[in-house]
Formats: sequence, C-alpha cells, structure tokens
Amino acid sequence: MYATLMHGPGDVRYERVEDPKILKPTDAIIQLSATCICGSDLWPYRGANQIDAPLHMGHEYCGVVIEVGPEVRTVKPGQFVVGSFCLSDNTCPHCEFGFQSSCVQREFMSGAQAPYARVPLADGTLVATEEMPDAEMVPHMLAVSDVLGTGWYGAVAAGVHEGATVVVVGDGAVGLMGVMAAKQLGAGRIIAMSRHESRQKLAREFGATDIVEERGEEGIARVMQLTNGVGAESVIEAVGMEQSMQQAMGICRPGGTIGYVGVPHGVSFDGQQLFFKQQRMLGGPAPVRRFLPDLMNRVLEGAIEPGKVFDLVLPIAEVAEGYKAMDERRAIKTMLVV
Amino acid sequence: MYATLMHGPGDVRYERVEDPKILKPTDAIIQLSATCICGSDLWPYRGANQIDAPLHMGHEYCGVVIEVGPEVRTVKPGQFVVGSFCLSDNTCPHCEFGFQSSCVQREFMSGAQAPYARVPLADGTLVATEEMPDAEMVPHMLAVSDVLGTGWYGAVAAGVHEGATVVVVGDGAVGLMGVMAAKQLGAGRIIAMSRHESRQKLAREFGATDIVEERGEEGIARVMQLTNGVGAESVIEAVGMEQSMQQAMGICRPGGTIGYVGVPHGVSFDGQQLFFKQQRMLGGPAPVRRFLPDLMNRVLEGAIEPGKVFDLVLPIAEVAEGYKAMDERRAIKTMLVV
Repeated sequence: MYATLMHGPGDVRYERVEDPKILKPTDAIIQLSATCICGSDLWPYRGANQIDAPLHMGHEYCGVVIEVGPEVRTVKPGQFVVGSFCLSDNTCPHCEFGFQSSCVQREFMSGAQAPYARVPLADGTLVATEEMPDAEMVPHMLAVSDVLGTGWYGAVAAGVHEGATVVVVGDGAVGLMGVMAAKQLGAGRIIAMSRHESRQKLAREFGATDIVEERGEEGIARVMQLTNGVGAESVIEAVGMEQSMQQAMGICRPGGTIGYVGVPHGVSFDGQQLFFKQQRMLGGPAPVRRFLPDLMNRVLEGAIEPGKVFDLVLPIAEVAEGYKAMDERRAIKTMLVV
Repeated sequence: MYATLMHGPGDVRYERVEDPKILKPTDAIIQLSATCICGSDLWPYRGANQIDAPLHMGHEYCGVVIEVGPEVRTVKPGQFVVGSFCLSDNTCPHCEFGFQSSCVQREFMSGAQAPYARVPLADGTLVATEEMPDAEMVPHMLAVSDVLGTGWYGAVAAGVHEGATVVVVGDGAVGLMGVMAAKQLGAGRIIAMSRHESRQKLAREFGATDIVEERGEEGIARVMQLTNGVGAESVIEAVGMEQSMQQAMGICRPGGTIGYVGVPHGVSFDGQQLFFKQQRMLGGPAPVRRFLPDLMNRVLEGAIEPGKVFDLVLPIAEVAEGYKAMDERRAIKTMLVV
C-alpha cells in the first residue's frame, strides 16, 4: 500500500510501503475510514524534533477491523472501531486509575495516515460501536480519537465543572475542542483567546461566550478585566509554548487549575513562581481511552459534532498539501480521505 | 519591649524595640501565649535570602487580644485567638475561594517572636476560642498557626482522601505535621521519608505506617517497591529543594498529586518532564485561615496534639540558641516561652 512518511522537516511523501501485518498476538489491523493530520505532526515538520529515519506518520484513526491477532478478545473483523493515539492495555494500575496514556505498556500509535494500519494492544485500545455508523459520522468519530479527546482531557484536567469560568489559550484544533468540552461539561463562561476570524467563529459555535484577541500582557489584562480582576477558575492551555504557558499562568486565579495539553517545547517553570501563583496544574498526553465510550456516545447521539474542526478535506494522496496548509495556518485541521 | 531581630545570616538578637501599636483601624494587638521558630526562618539565617535591614522575626502566634482598632468587629480584648502567618481580609474573592494566602490584601505576619505583636486585618485573620484554653493547650494551638496548617494544606493540596497511599518527603516539622494531617484525613498508608531516629519516632506516633530512610534514586526505588511499582497517589513535598522535588516527582503515580509546601529555593521544572510525568501539582503558602476553625476544634477536642512537634522549649530571651539548635538539626522545632 501507500502511506505517509516524513523524511525531514517540510518533506512529507505519500509512498509505497509494506502492508501492515499482525506482529503480535494482541494486534489488530484496521482499514481506515478516514485519517487526519495532528497539530503535533507539525513539530517535526517544522524542525522542532530530530528526525533520524523516515517517520510513519499518523496517530488519529477510526475504521473497520479486518484482522486480529489470536489473543484479541474484545473486537473482531467487521466492527467499526475508534482508538486512542496512546496504545494501552487498559488493565494495568495506571489504566485502572484512568491514566491509560501512562499505561505500563504504553506505545504511541503511528502509521495511521494510510489506508490500513496496525493497532497494537487492540483489546485495551480500541472501542467498537454496536452498528456500522453512517458515513457522515466518520469525521466526528475520527475527531474523538485525539483532537477532541485531548481537548476534553484539557477541560477535565483544568477541573471544568458546572458554572465554571474557563479560558482556553490557543485557537488551534485542540483549543477549539477544549471549548466544546468545556461547554459539554457545563461551564458557565468560556473565554476563547483567538485572533483569527474563522477560528473565533468556530469557537463561538462550539460554545465560547467571549473572545479575547489580545495576547501577552494585554491578553492577560483583558481576561482579568472580564473576570472582575479575579482570573479564571479553569484554564486550558492548548499550545505548549513559553508565551502561552505564561498567559495561562497570568489569567488563572489562585486555587484555580491549568490543564495543559500542548506538548511543551522550550518551556520551563521557576519553582518559586509556581509556588506563589498557587495554581493547580495537570498536563500530559490525554488518556483518551478513558473518555472514548462517552465521547463516541455523544457523537452517535448527535450531541456534538467535533468533525466540524476539519476545515480542509483532501484525498490522502495529497497529504503533503495537507501539512503545508496547516503549517501556513490556511487550515485548522486537515482530514484525509482514504 | 524586647523582640527578636535578625541582623544578618546567623545573627539573631533579642533586643529592645518599640511596643507595637494600632496603626490601622483593622489592627489588633495581642499578648502572645507562646511563639516559635519556623523552618522558613532558617532560609535568611542560612543566607539564602538577602537581608537589607534588621528583620522583625516571627509569624506563628497565639495569644490574648489586648487592644483592637475601631473597625475590628469579630474579636475583642480578653479573647484567646489564633491567626495565620498570612494576614487576610477573609472577604475578597480569593479568600471566599478558600485561598486566603492569596488574599488581595495579603501581608505576611512578622514580629511575633516577642511578648506582644500587632496583627493587621484582625477580623479576617484571627479566630477566637469560646473560652480561655488551658495552659497545656497552648503549644498545640500555637502549632495550628503555621506548621500544622501548612502540613494540613500539603495533605489537602496532595488530594489525600480516605484510604489513599501518601508519601511525605521531608521529616522537618512541616513534614511531620503532613503525616498527622494525612492520618486525620483518613489515608490508608503513610510512608514517611526520614533518616533521623527521633523524627522517625514522631512520624510513627503521628500515623506513619512505613519509614523510608533512603534518599535520591534509592529512596525512589524503595517507595516504588513498597507500592508494587505503582507510586503514591498523594505526595506531600515539605522541603523545597531540587532534590526533594525530584524525589516527589519520582514517587508520585501518573494522575497522582504532589502538594508542595516547602518554599522552593533553586528549584526549576522542565515543561516536557512535567507533562509526561502527568502529575497534578499544587503548592503555595498555606491558606491556614481556611483550616483554622476545624484545626482548633480538633485540638480542643483532644483529637490531635500537634504541639508534640516542639522538641525544644526555651525562654524567648534565648531565641538565638533556638535558631542555632534548629540550624544544626539538634531540634526539630523550638517553642519560645514569653
């Protein structure tokens, strides 16, 4: 088959590779219904991570099981499944504690920007639907796999609850999903920090009650003004840069919580600053598996339409253009039709 | 009167100063029943903080109100009171949120290592007892003011709950109070990291179920062994040094919580390390005011005896020796009789 490989910064190719095979008895092979490009794929694309060998790209996926290893018990060929970008056994103590993204057997999914993919630890990673969903459900189910799951975790990590005041730092796809999650979790006020009109529009559609265009000190001042000088109880940090983290710390009230889901790049914290800010913090790769059944249900019931975050749809053969569009911020998130 | 001043590192003197006066209408003057030396007083004593002018030392206190400013409503002369080392109005949004240590009017108490002291923001800071407590209650009430309040906050910040596995890093007075707090909050297992026999003994008396003497990587390995490789759900960090913080991060399970109450000195965090550790963190100066009524009740009911943490009692005129004994770790915590 063909699949997406990254050979170096800016160098993404759709090229011939070997078909995926069952390598371990706990593997499954799925035929993807659709796949997509993640904001985190842009880190190596932009040269922020070292690339030593061609990377098999893609970790967001949903599709139909076509083969399973002899030890797989919970999914079977013909079923529609969604999985997390973190592969987990879902039985170890960390999984049972709801942190499947720190599973003792954790691996990160790869190779999903392709028509077929191998999913290790299939029993612990994949969740099957009862019936084959309609085609129009596919973008929404795909979004659950990472971008919604990550935004959701950001909101949960930030302690969002009924009536809470929430600020979302970052108007990328994860930030927008953070807005949707905050809304679903009952937030009373959702302030989205965004300076791009199309993203502001989506943020409002997903539940944002206020938009703050300013950044840095001005952005902090604006949020403080909107919150009567108090700051927000919950802040979702969905970027991972020094500036965005300082922004989050500048607008979170003492005793409030920052959920940070952008992988930090070049970010460090001063212990005494953290101490006197007195903000609760929880970050990490999202334990999407914890949320999968609930989020899949919300999609199937029509309560949420996270697939709206895909504002560019391309045939997978044009994956390179999909990366380029996201890198140049012409697209929020690119879905790839296989 | 005489009071305790620090003129420079290692230079503590009990010398003549002006009597404290009501300076603002919200002030109270108290006659101290006893006072004590805090672990944090050792930072400037050891030269870790700059000292530009003589410091009026002392921020842990209980005693009898002798005078109040014209706006003070909730306490009156003759009442026995305990206050927090953080002065707060107890009415601002941060106070109402339970974070009085980030009160918009916050000041830090000073000058309490003396027979009399001025307490600003008396209404928001002081809590009076219904009756004059017996003399033997004084050490326990004094401990509530900071050292127990801080250990308690460490346990609350670390999310300690019924049945939880808790590790306390640091066997100073605050760490020992963290053990007591964890026990009171229902922890199922309390692992105290301590290499000093007298402190181990107190830790066991306060509720520690296990003692780990090892430090650094060996200490981490020992705790991981005790927790079946999982790590602890709640970690109280009560030191504030790089090594102790790394210890805390090494033994906290993913999704677990570190409550850090040692003021960080020379501690910094790498964003990506924090992210992938996936531990919840909350630190800061303890909002003791939130806990005061509850902790004072527990003392008066005889449920806890936090004053046992004072293993050296000196007349206040010998305060310099009190500092020296703590600096040389001959004493855990020095109480000063006024």
